[in-house]
Amino acid sequence: MTKQVKTAIEPTREEDYPQWYQQVVKASEMAENSPVRGCMVIKPWGYALWENISRVLDGMFKETDVKNAYFPLFIPLSFFEKEAEHVEGFAKECAVVTHHKLEAGPNGGLVPAGPLAEPLIVRPTSETIIGDSFSKWISSYRDLPVLINQWANVVRWEMRTRTFLRTSEFLWQEGHTAHASREEAEERTRMMLEVYARFAQEYLAMPVIKGTKSPSERFPGAVDTLCIEAMMQDRKALQAGTSHFLGQNFAKGSNIKFQTQGESEEFAWTTSWGVSTRLIGGVIMSHGDDDGIIMPPRVASAHVVLLPISRKPEEHEKVMAFTKDLASDLKAITYYGRPVTVEIDARDIGGARGWDWIKKGIPLRVEIGPRDIEQNSVFVARRDLPHREKTSLKRDDFLSKITGILDEIQNNLFERAQSHLLANTVPMDTRDDFYAFFTPANKEKPEIHGGFAMSHWCGSADCEKDIKSDLSVTIRCIPMDAPKEDGACVYCGKPSARRVVFAKSY
Amino acid sequence: MTKQVKTAIEPTREEDYPQWYQQVVKASEMAENSPVRGCMVIKPWGYALWENISRVLDGMFKETDVKNAYFPLFIPLSFFEKEAEHVEGFAKECAVVTHHKLEAGPNGGLVPAGPLAEPLIVRPTSETIIGDSFSKWISSYRDLPVLINQWANVVRWEMRTRTFLRTSEFLWQEGHTAHASREEAEERTRMMLEVYARFAQEYLAMPVIKGTKSPSERFPGAVDTLCIEAMMQDRKALQAGTSHFLGQNFAKGSNIKFQTQGESEEFAWTTSWGVSTRLIGGVIMSHGDDDGIIMPPRVASAHVVLLPISRKPEEHEKVMAFTKDLASDLKAITYYGRPVTVEIDARDIGGARGWDWIKKGIPLRVEIGPRDIEQNSVFVARRDLPHREKTSLKRDDFLSKITGILDEIQNNLFERAQSHLLANTVPMDTRDDFYAFFTPANKEKPEIHGGFAMSHWCGSADCEKDIKSDLSVTIRCIPMDAPKEDGACVYCGKPSARRVVFAKSY
Repeated sequence: MTKQVKTAIEPTREEDYPQWYQQVVKASEMAENSPVRGCMVIKPWGYALWENISRVLDGMFKETDVKNAYFPLFIPLSFFEKEAEHVEGFAKECAVVTHHKLEAGPNGGLVPAGPLAEPLIVRPTSETIIGDSFSKWISSYRDLPVLINQWANVVRWEMRTRTFLRTSEFLWQEGHTAHASREEAEERTRMMLEVYARFAQEYLAMPVIKGTKSPSERFPGAVDTLCIEAMMQDRKALQAGTSHFLGQNFAKGSNIKFQTQGESEEFAWTTSWGVSTRLIGGVIMSHGDDDGIIMPPRVASAHVVLLPISRKPEEHEKVMAFTKDLASDLKAITYYGRPVTVEIDARDIGGARGWDWIKKGIPLRVEIGPRDIEQNSVFVARRDLPHREKTSLKRDDFLSKITGILDEIQNNLFERAQSHLLANTVPMDTRDDFYAFFTPANKEKPEIHGGFAMSHWCGSADCEKDIKSDLSVTIRCIPMDAPKEDGACVYCGKPSARRVVFAKSY
Repeated sequence: MTKQVKTAIEPTREEDYPQWYQQVVKASEMAENSPVRGCMVIKPWGYALWENISRVLDGMFKETDVKNAYFPLFIPLSFFEKEAEHVEGFAKECAVVTHHKLEAGPNGGLVPAGPLAEPLIVRPTSETIIGDSFSKWISSYRDLPVLINQWANVVRWEMRTRTFLRTSEFLWQEGHTAHASREEAEERTRMMLEVYARFAQEYLAMPVIKGTKSPSERFPGAVDTLCIEAMMQDRKALQAGTSHFLGQNFAKGSNIKFQTQGESEEFAWTTSWGVSTRLIGGVIMSHGDDDGIIMPPRVASAHVVLLPISRKPEEHEKVMAFTKDLASDLKAITYYGRPVTVEIDARDIGGARGWDWIKKGIPLRVEIGPRDIEQNSVFVARRDLPHREKTSLKRDDFLSKITGILDEIQNNLFERAQSHLLANTVPMDTRDDFYAFFTPANKEKPEIHGGFAMSHWCGSADCEKDIKSDLSVTIRCIPMDAPKEDGACVYCGKPSARRVVFAKSY
C-alpha cells in the first residue's frame, strides 16, 4: 500500500484543472482579482516574473535593431475606424472615455462631466495611433525601415476573464514596423516569430509549434498572422505569441506613404507583433504540479531561497551569519544575464515555510542548519523533483555547481513539456476518430480530451466553422514546417495538401 | 567685431525661452504632440532617456527593499471618493470611462454603447486602488512594512499642456508603503526624498533643494508633502519629485488595519512618492544651450556617436572597418552600470550630420577620417564645450579615458547648474525688494525675472495667496536644512522663524 501523499494545491490537476489553476495563482501569491471587473492585481512575485520576461525579450528585440517608444493610451474614435476589419474586431470589447471631469450630481455623489467632443478608446492595440506617427515620420525610402516597440498596458473588455490568460487589462509589448517592400515586411514578420519561439523554448521551457493562422483566425485587418502555439497540461492550446504581416492595409488607413528610389510614391508595408502577461499563465500550465507553479530558472522571480534552521537560540546568530554570507556569494554569480537572485526566509513558522516556497515555485530551496554548518555543507532541494529529495552539498560545490543545477532544472522542464506535447499530438484521419478524440470521456470534465489533432483540412471556412460549433475546436495553426502530403479533409473529404493543428484552446 | 555665431535652435533662450524649449524637444526628436489632446508621443531618443532614468531609479528603490507590482488602470468612482480631499483635488481633471463597447449609431458611425453601472476613472494616481489591495494584504504587524512600487501611465486632464512638463498622460513610478508606526512611515517618506535628491544630483546633474511643502501646496489628502525643487535656466522652479507622508488618512479611507504586537487594532501609516517623465523636461531646461539639449552622460540615450568620414570611395571600407572595430571596443566598457552605448552615423549628408547629434545632445561626437586612422587616432568633441573645440586622441587613449571624460562632462553640467542656482537664489527681506525681484524688467518677456527668493514667511495661507495672486509666485518649499533665524514675514511683517523658497514655477 502506498501512503497517500499530501499535495499543496487542492484540487489536484486531475480533479479539476481550471480550479487547480486558480488555486495555484492564489497560493503562489502571483496575482489576485481586483475590484475592477476583469482587471487583475499583479503582486510582486508575479511581477518579478514579468520583469524577467520583459528584460530578456527587450534585449532580443534590440539585437534586431528595434527601438522602444511610447504612444498615447487613448485612440480617437475616428482613428480607430480607419481600418474597417480592425474596428469590427475590437468594437465589442473596448473601454470608452466620454468625459474629462467629475462634478457633484443631483444626489450628492460625483457624476461624469465635461463631455468630450469625440469619444476616446482605451487602446486594445495601437496600430492606428502608431500608424499616425509613422505617416509623419516616413516620407522617403531613406526613412525605412522603421522598427518600433512599445511596452504598455492595453484594455479589451472581456466578458469571461481568467487571471493572466484573459483579463480586461493586461501588460504586453507591441512591435510595429514599416518597410519599403513586401518581402522585407514578411521577413520581419517571420523574424519576430522566431524571436518568440526561441524565447518560449529557451527561457520559458515551453515547446511551441510555429505556424500560420487560417484566415478566420487572423488578427483583424492583417494579411497574414503567424503564431506560436503551446500545449498546456490539460492538452488545450495556448496561443503564446503572434506576429502579423499587415500588407498595406494599415498603411492605407493611416496614409503611410514613401517616395521610392525610383521617385514614385508607394504605401509602406507594415507588421505588428506582441506577447503579453498571458505568458505567465502559460508558464503555470506548462510546468505546474499538484504542489503549485514551477518557475523556469531563466525567468524565475528568484532562483534560490535560503532557509536557516536554528532550534536553539544560541545557534541562531551563527546560522544567520552563514546564511548571509552564502547569499552574498550567490549574488556574485551571474546566470543568464542577471545575478543569482536570493531570498532569505528566517520566519519561525516551521514546515509551512518550505511549503510556501514550493507553492511559489522557486527553483531551489536550501536548508541551513547547525550540523550542515559544521560540515560546511548545505541541503539542497530542487523544485522539479519530489519535495523530499534533498541533496547535501559542500558549500563550495553548491556555489560552483549552481548554474549547472539551474540549467538541469530548465532542461528537465523543457523535456517534460516536450514529451507531453509529442505524446498528445496525434494524426487523425477520419471524421469519427477526430470527433472521438475531442469528445471528453467524462462529461463532468469537459476539459479532458485528446490533445492536438494533426489532420487534413481542405481550406474551407465552412468546415472550420462546423467543427468549431460541434466541438469548440479550432485550427490553431498551419505549421510552418509541415511537409506537403496529399490527403482528404477530415471533415468534408475534399483534397488537402497538408495537415494542420486542430485543438481546443484558451 | 565678433562674427555672428550661428545657433542650431531658433529662437535662442534669451530671445524666447518657452519657444526655445519646444524647438529643442522637436530638434532632438525626443517627443512630438499626438492627435490626442495633451498626450505626447515619446520617440525613441526620448524614450531611451526614460529607460535609463527608470532603470537607475528602479535599482535604487530595490536597494531599499521595495518590490514592484502592478495595479489596475481603472479606479471605480466609489473608491476614488474614499478620501475627501483626494477626490476634490483630482475631480476636475480626470478621464472617465462610461461605456465598454461601440455600436453603429443613428448616422452610420460608431457610438459608445454598453453603459457601465459605475463609471471608472483612469488613474491620476493610485492611492485608493492600491489601498484596497493593502487592506487585504495586511492584517498583523508581521505583515508590515509593505513596500511597493509601480511603473505606470497616469492621466490628468490638463487644460494647458507642454511636452514632458505637463501632459494629459505621462509615465511615472508611484511608490506606496504601509507601516506600523508614524515614525517609520515618516522615515520612509524622508528616505525616498533622499533617493530622489541623490538621483537628481548624481545622475541628472540637477542640483535640488529638499524641503517641505506649505499646507496649501500639499498633495490632496497628505499630512505632509516633501519635495525636491530644481531651478531651470529661466530661473523658474521645477518640482522634480515628491514624497508624501499620508498619516492614517488613506488607511482610514481604504480600511487598512492591523493587529499590533499588543493585540490592539490600528490603522496603518502610509506613504506615497513619485517622479515622472517631467524629469526629462527638467534635464532639457537645466542643461540645454542654444544648440539644443545636452544629455548628462549617466542617463544619456547614448554616450557617443562615431562619424566616419571618407571623401574617396576607396577609403570607405577602411574607415568603416576602423569605426566598427572601435564601436565594438567601446561597447565592452561599462559606465555606471551599463555598457557604453554607441551610435554609428555613416549618412552622406555633410555637416548636417554633426549638427543632428549636437541637437540630440549626445555627450561625445567622434570623427574618424583616413588621416586619423593613419595615426591611429580619433577626433573627439564634447557636447558641453563649444562645438568647434575638438581634441585628437590616440585610439587607445580614447578607450582608456572615455569613462573619465564622461564623468568630466557630468560634473561640468552639475557645476554649471549649481552655480546658476546659487547665483540666482537671493535673500529678500522687504516687500518692495521682493516684488521688484519677481517683476519682469521687460513686460514682453514675463518669463525673465529674479529667481528664487529666500524670504521670511509667517505661516499664513493668506499671505501666500496674496503673493500668488499678485506675482504668480508660490512657496516652493520650506527647506529641510534651513537654519532657525528670527525675522519678519516678507508680506505682512509678522514674526517668522525661518526663510522659505519663493519662486515662479512650472
